[in-house]
Amino acid sequence: MNEKRKLVLVGTGFVGMSMAYSFLSTGGIDELVLIDVNEAKAEGEAMDLQHGLPYARGKMVVKSGGYEECKDASVVVITAGVTMKEGETRLDIAAKDTMIIKSVTENIMKSGFDGIIVVASNPVDSMTYVAQKVSGLPKERVIGSGTILDTARLRYLMSEYLNISSNNIHAYIMGEHGDSSFVPWTHAYVGCKNLLELLDEKGKDLSDLHGIYEQVQQAGYELIKRKKSTYYGIGLSLNRLVHAILDDENVILTVSCYQEGEYGQEGLYIGVPAVINRQGIREIVKLDLNEVDQAKFDASCKALKELNTDVIDPLL
Amino acid sequence: MNEKRKLVLVGTGFVGMSMAYSFLSTGGIDELVLIDVNEAKAEGEAMDLQHGLPYARGKMVVKSGGYEECKDASVVVITAGVTMKEGETRLDIAAKDTMIIKSVTENIMKSGFDGIIVVASNPVDSMTYVAQKVSGLPKERVIGSGTILDTARLRYLMSEYLNISSNNIHAYIMGEHGDSSFVPWTHAYVGCKNLLELLDEKGKDLSDLHGIYEQVQQAGYELIKRKKSTYYGIGLSLNRLVHAILDDENVILTVSCYQEGEYGQEGLYIGVPAVINRQGIREIVKLDLNEVDQAKFDASCKALKELNTDVIDPLL
Amino acid sequence: MNEKRKLVLVGTGFVGMSMAYSFLSTGGIDELVLIDVNEAKAEGEAMDLQHGLPYARGKMVVKSGGYEECKDASVVVITAGVTMKEGETRLDIAAKDTMIIKSVTENIMKSGFDGIIVVASNPVDSMTYVAQKVSGLPKERVIGSGTILDTARLRYLMSEYLNISSNNIHAYIMGEHGDSSFVPWTHAYVGCKNLLELLDEKGKDLSDLHGIYEQVQQAGYELIKRKKSTYYGIGLSLNRLVHAILDDENVILTVSCYQEGEYGQEGLYIGVPAVINRQGIREIVKLDLNEVDQAKFDASCKALKELNTDVIDPLL
Amino acid sequence: MNEKRKLVLVGTGFVGMSMAYSFLSTGGIDELVLIDVNEAKAEGEAMDLQHGLPYARGKMVVKSGGYEECKDASVVVITAGVTMKEGETRLDIAAKDTMIIKSVTENIMKSGFDGIIVVASNPVDSMTYVAQKVSGLPKERVIGSGTILDTARLRYLMSEYLNISSNNIHAYIMGEHGDSSFVPWTHAYVGCKNLLELLDEKGKDLSDLHGIYEQVQQAGYELIKRKKSTYYGIGLSLNRLVHAILDDENVILTVSCYQEGEYGQEGLYIGVPAVINRQGIREIVKLDLNEVDQAKFDASCKALKELNTDVIDPLL
Repeated sequence: MNEKRKLVLVGTGFVGMSMAYSFLSTGGIDELVLIDVNEAKAEGEAMDLQHGLPYARGKMVVKSGGYEECKDASVVVITAGVTMKEGETRLDIAAKDTMIIKSVTENIMKSGFDGIIVVASNPVDSMTYVAQKVSGLPKERVIGSGTILDTARLRYLMSEYLNISSNNIHAYIMGEHGDSSFVPWTHAYVGCKNLLELLDEKGKDLSDLHGIYEQVQQAGYELIKRKKSTYYGIGLSLNRLVHAILDDENVILTVSCYQEGEYGQEGLYIGVPAVINRQGIREIVKLDLNEVDQAKFDASCKALKELNTDVIDPLL
Repeated sequence: MNEKRKLVLVGTGFVGMSMAYSFLSTGGIDELVLIDVNEAKAEGEAMDLQHGLPYARGKMVVKSGGYEECKDASVVVITAGVTMKEGETRLDIAAKDTMIIKSVTENIMKSGFDGIIVVASNPVDSMTYVAQKVSGLPKERVIGSGTILDTARLRYLMSEYLNISSNNIHAYIMGEHGDSSFVPWTHAYVGCKNLLELLDEKGKDLSDLHGIYEQVQQAGYELIKRKKSTYYGIGLSLNRLVHAILDDENVILTVSCYQEGEYGQEGLYIGVPAVINRQGIREIVKLDLNEVDQAKFDASCKALKELNTDVIDPLL
Repeated sequence: MNEKRKLVLVGTGFVGMSMAYSFLSTGGIDELVLIDVNEAKAEGEAMDLQHGLPYARGKMVVKSGGYEECKDASVVVITAGVTMKEGETRLDIAAKDTMIIKSVTENIMKSGFDGIIVVASNPVDSMTYVAQKVSGLPKERVIGSGTILDTARLRYLMSEYLNISSNNIHAYIMGEHGDSSFVPWTHAYVGCKNLLELLDEKGKDLSDLHGIYEQVQQAGYELIKRKKSTYYGIGLSLNRLVHAILDDENVILTVSCYQEGEYGQEGLYIGVPAVINRQGIREIVKLDLNEVDQAKFDASCKALKELNTDVIDPLL
Repeated sequence: MNEKRKLVLVGTGFVGMSMAYSFLSTGGIDELVLIDVNEAKAEGEAMDLQHGLPYARGKMVVKSGGYEECKDASVVVITAGVTMKEGETRLDIAAKDTMIIKSVTENIMKSGFDGIIVVASNPVDSMTYVAQKVSGLPKERVIGSGTILDTARLRYLMSEYLNISSNNIHAYIMGEHGDSSFVPWTHAYVGCKNLLELLDEKGKDLSDLHGIYEQVQQAGYELIKRKKSTYYGIGLSLNRLVHAILDDENVILTVSCYQEGEYGQEGLYIGVPAVINRQGIREIVKLDLNEVDQAKFDASCKALKELNTDVIDPLL
């Protein structure tokens, strides 16, 4: 296990940079390297972060560089890709991004990299699939951001609705990061209390929760409508995931994981709860889905597999 | 609501001081005042903390003082009392401590204090009862540390046993902080997965968990055997509780709460999960206890009520 | 003194939002309200931050709102204004921004606001002058970000050059935030060692430091060339300044302060070292400038005064 | 360079444990191992800390163990030794502690340890000398806590006196940790302003500062009078020093360093300002002492050398 806390970011758009910038305030890494196809951009971003270092938490080296910097990195986060524009779906940009992620991954591996790859480029489940296939790394060492942000959005909105700290909201968004995700509500808890029982006790209705799920599902579109893009929420989510890896936390997060039958599906990456530590994905947490939720998961997988087979595989 | 983050500690023994010292590293308060019947001791403790302030997180005023300092405090933590010695039970020291807590509370109230009292003196459930009765404060504004430490110990040990972050261990120790506490195992979860199902899936046995509970129950005695006392675990637990109050977290913690029928009992303080915020105890979280657990809770309450009626009430 | 830790941001461009986002990771405030002339933008930014709250440090309320939210705020940070474009100087946008800051300040004051205003809009020294004049608040309670970022840049670059932690680099950039700033090198230290003596001992030359100053002075332009704008460094600098105020730190920062003869000049705001606490600017730290530096400061003041008299005053 | 953040503490008295406990709240290490000649004590202390882990910052492994744990440690902190009692001087316990530190160091080295040793046992300058001599490690990799606490006390008291954040108080206590230390006042600054000039400007007198130095010098005795011992201030100071090492900070701290003529003395360990990083002591910061201060330093060294020659060397 490489003990070095060196993080490389490939792609200095707002998503990646929001993650990078947050590390100045959370600490937890020793070195941060920014790589971008636009080298001047990466250089400028590194300078902007460096100027904040005197007010940062802890010591950290920040710089821009080339792919050779991946050689001794513990984690490489890929956020490169085409920006989603108003009106575009995540799937629209699959083909364009496949070529980008393929090239990025090849460059990372050429350095001799032997750590963990985190993929946040969209459509994230498919791009994680690309990065794993191209890199040849063990499947547990390529992780997609999956539904980590969707779950954070769900927990925030439920926290507001129930007026309970999000620390006590235990619920997952599973499936594809996008339109076909779902919440297994029978496996949702507030502290150690079953959510459905709590709603019953409070005289609240599950339909409110369906409304909350709708909000989560529409969040990306709503944000693009208002601010053209979305990056702070995903930025902190990626920071959280990188901490889970580097701190060997053995913590459960909903990320895009390679499926080997845990939920009855195989051969694709998709968002499920998993235990994350310094080795990557230690294991997928298996929930006993009810028929409705299993059908949603299967549909989510079917759509992703078709994308992989029809659009992506031919490009690899 | 008093917005000031002023914390007063009454009793500068190791429990109280471990909490106090931890605030230098966690931040979160503006002012800390130490009160002790031994004024020189409080002065010395304040000096020792002050010398660490240049290396502390954030700005904080630390000093020793008299009860008049409680006037504009947001939270007063009481850890005063007779130290439990090897061989003594928590109950042995009930009468002695009743007189101390009574006097301390009277002094606090004389200042014009109008905040929240946290009691950590043992036997904690009874001493919280004393502080509430003597202070006349609303019951939700007097909180005992209850089973907050027991729950932390349980979560730590389960985390080690299951190799999962304690952040994902959702389980409570309820009842009296002492020999008659219990874990409602049917309401325990790892992430969003039912604990009993997880054990089954892993081929593990509930008897291991009973062993873990035994360890928690014996932890105090084991620690006293090895280091005469125990204070770091409770110190951080009290820091956590004070943060929950001052940050208005609406977070669920197992603390000693006044019972008004939530679990079928009334008229006493005992450890149950509750939502904590700037107003104190917002509400008790009601779990549907099975027969065995309810019997344990009732027995726990019966013992406490007898203590209150037989030993404590006559002294108030 | 208002004990509430409520922060209002006016202007949700990248500078303001970089400050806002950083508070999720540093903590230190209870409530953050975003105001923007584009209400949908403010709403979208608030949503994006909210989605990160489950992974944030500590509890915080984030929302968008109107100027009435300033009523009980402790600090309002103004970053509204015209974005500086490639080729534009800070002075080019003075007139446009004067009208914006005037209107913003009037709106803030109408709410009944009685806290501290921090101005980061450019040209910052003049805009701080505008905010103070329009608000009628005591001069110590209107603070400009001044040369706080310039000083951070200087300390970072000196830290790299000398291979010493920026915590031990004690040096100020003074004067106008812009082309006419300067470093009083005779008052620069590394730890408790005079910088000039250290350079001598190391066989290094003051000309290297002049090169470093050049880099600081050009930093804004270099960043705009590479990434069109600059916001992370100033974002963390503003977070630092707000912490200094809310935590009542009595810490020295180089900010834009109203001059009353401390450095021989009167009637304008300009960047000097000052002691910052919950009341705002407690006092300006007076250094004994040598002739060359005093001449630079006087020239800086002259330019600013002309701008105030010729361009700004007629608009107020 | 070993990238692992493994810290071993030898000696689980209050000084060592106060450092250990603080790491739960500051984070910054991956693993903490407690060693004590009283194995049950070390085990109890580890258990007490473990119970606080669910409320700690970040992930950390805490356990007790034997000297074989030093093999892959980055830093070993030695606080073992005879406790100083009321009336005893630091020198009284030199001989007793020499034998302890010798044995501890031999045990550490037998493990194959190849990291950095920090010594906090008293008399600290001599005990650091012992640890270096016995270990045979390069002199820059054996560091004594020296006057790091004395300097923190000085900065705290000056901060209170001047009502300026201790972050802006730049002054050192140099010399032996004990009665013969001193402050080179001509090299003291508040921000970038010379302290003596500041006093003059404020109409304050240097005699007040002499009074503050007296307080620092007497602090240990005053604390022992009031609370029998002193450990929180030194606990946080040691945490600070370990962070400086593990984070490769290149920060200046006043620690006990081997002298090779930097201040005109050779062949002993004594407290001076030095740049600390992952390699240990990178270099001693040389100040130009005036005659009076140099005489104090020489006297300090003379006393230490006599102790080394007369009491310690014969025991090694």
